[in-house]
Amino acid sequence: MACGEFSLIARYFDRVRSTRRDVETGIGDDCALLSVAEKQLLAISTDTLVSGVHFLPDIDPRDLGYKALAVNLSDLAAMGADPAWLTLAITLPEVDEPWLEAFSDSLFEQLDYYGMQLIGGDTTRGPLSMTLGIHGLVPAGRALKRSGARAGDWIYVTGTPGDSAAGLAILQDRLDVADAQQADYLRKRHLRPKPRVLHGQALRDRASSAIDLSDGLVSDLGHILKASDCGARILLDSLPYSEAMRDNVDAEQALRWALSGGEDYELCFTVPELNRGALDVAIGNLGVPFTCIGQVVPASEGLQFFEEGRPVTLDLKGYDHFASH
Amino acid sequence: MACGEFSLIARYFDRVRSTRRDVETGIGDDCALLSVAEKQLLAISTDTLVSGVHFLPDIDPRDLGYKALAVNLSDLAAMGADPAWLTLAITLPEVDEPWLEAFSDSLFEQLDYYGMQLIGGDTTRGPLSMTLGIHGLVPAGRALKRSGARAGDWIYVTGTPGDSAAGLAILQDRLDVADAQQADYLRKRHLRPKPRVLHGQALRDRASSAIDLSDGLVSDLGHILKASDCGARILLDSLPYSEAMRDNVDAEQALRWALSGGEDYELCFTVPELNRGALDVAIGNLGVPFTCIGQVVPASEGLQFFEEGRPVTLDLKGYDHFASH
Repeated sequence: MACGEFSLIARYFDRVRSTRRDVETGIGDDCALLSVAEKQLLAISTDTLVSGVHFLPDIDPRDLGYKALAVNLSDLAAMGADPAWLTLAITLPEVDEPWLEAFSDSLFEQLDYYGMQLIGGDTTRGPLSMTLGIHGLVPAGRALKRSGARAGDWIYVTGTPGDSAAGLAILQDRLDVADAQQADYLRKRHLRPKPRVLHGQALRDRASSAIDLSDGLVSDLGHILKASDCGARILLDSLPYSEAMRDNVDAEQALRWALSGGEDYELCFTVPELNRGALDVAIGNLGVPFTCIGQVVPASEGLQFFEEGRPVTLDLKGYDHFASH
Repeated sequence: MACGEFSLIARYFDRVRSTRRDVETGIGDDCALLSVAEKQLLAISTDTLVSGVHFLPDIDPRDLGYKALAVNLSDLAAMGADPAWLTLAITLPEVDEPWLEAFSDSLFEQLDYYGMQLIGGDTTRGPLSMTLGIHGLVPAGRALKRSGARAGDWIYVTGTPGDSAAGLAILQDRLDVADAQQADYLRKRHLRPKPRVLHGQALRDRASSAIDLSDGLVSDLGHILKASDCGARILLDSLPYSEAMRDNVDAEQALRWALSGGEDYELCFTVPELNRGALDVAIGNLGVPFTCIGQVVPASEGLQFFEEGRPVTLDLKGYDHFASH
């Protein structure tokens, strides 16, 4: 195995297009050696993607190369960290050169875009899966944590959550969208989610907490509420929907996808009243809508949903993530 | 999946026995947040272990928990780095609680021993495999790289390479060792390799290059020679063998295992003539034999083997790793 392993790594992954100054030794020794500037904290996250669980087995390798990195960048965005280095451990059933070329081209394109460098990895034979380790840098004391929300803070989301679930439904022939442009938009929201890295950076010192939407809004907001020991009121009328969603999906399904669809990789964050003006200035020009969807309340009030000013009870089946906490 | 995932993580992996001061945020946010002291470099390595490829499918989970970490610690040792943090991405076919308890107990025992902290991870369902990301710290400018060997330097190994391959042969019923203690010793060398962390630290400023023996001596020394643009003379008479190896394995097989057995996780390193005295002082009291097995020569001389003072040609079949470079 090791022979094939080395030639694989050498050929497809050992191409250093960007050379960061903080990388003293990259791929090719027992460890990579990195320097971290003074007063910077290191932010580290790791995610595994398994074929058939996290992506469709017949996924275009270019989409996979994109999404594998985007999902991990989204974790950095949620901390307000600047992307820096990546490790990639990939398990492949066979050496499929066109596949590897398309996958690695797409991955390196994104790495270059974000000024990142691949610093190490491992290649093994087996069922297709990969584990990425992403490393970012954030000024000490300015990271966005889940635990900073306080009663009275306003709750925001970027973008239009639920689109990714609608896109997946199209890909799996569970949703029919006649308009080709709208269908394409929704599919792209699933296959090519945009990690909100710039938003995360701009939210430092302004948001009191943040998380990225990987499991669904109710579930992920639940993590903030749990870590911050708070409750929340969500105004269902305020939930933002894309035009493609409004035009093609009935209201009940759209609501369900918005609250629990998952894989949107938008940010959900809380902002103290005093910072709302600064927020508009900080992220108003980034070309992505952001919407206030409710307010943080004391933990004793739990998580409540309102529609037309009145509390409503939602059937929380399908919101398992939150139910488990 | 996510539900089970969270309860798994919470129950077995979210136990912080050691709390390092450099961990500002551990498990439980989008990223871990870590601080790196001034004048320290970060050393990062990642390794995947797949059932049936890197370990026997019926391996005792305690041995697996030990070895998964040991293999990664060995990469830090080869750089002379101090162990610090671990990420663990594990894919499991099912939630087998006794298995998880035994695996994680063993893993945390080792983490505690080395003063390390688990800072993040991911749990997914699928065929058993895991990817560890290990993070260490090394004083800037003092890391042991593969590229520092120079003609004239002496080549050393710790321990007795080949024992791990003999241990594996016993486990697979390919080798019969009558003496129970000797059989146990060899099996342990395969199942519980000792990462040479203390040796790596002591070799800073003394060794000119280092690597750990994962693929076999010829292959791994080959990486040093390639990175340093050198050749080497290996004195086969000098290769160190354990008593268990000498008593139970014929000379030809022992030589083959010593040169290409793999998975010994001993260190191979080079030392300039001037540092040989300091070397004895630095690692002479660590309780592990270390042996000079040859000398670095100019690249033009290639890799040569000597027996009783005369050059010998080895059949390099089974030494694929090196042949591929």
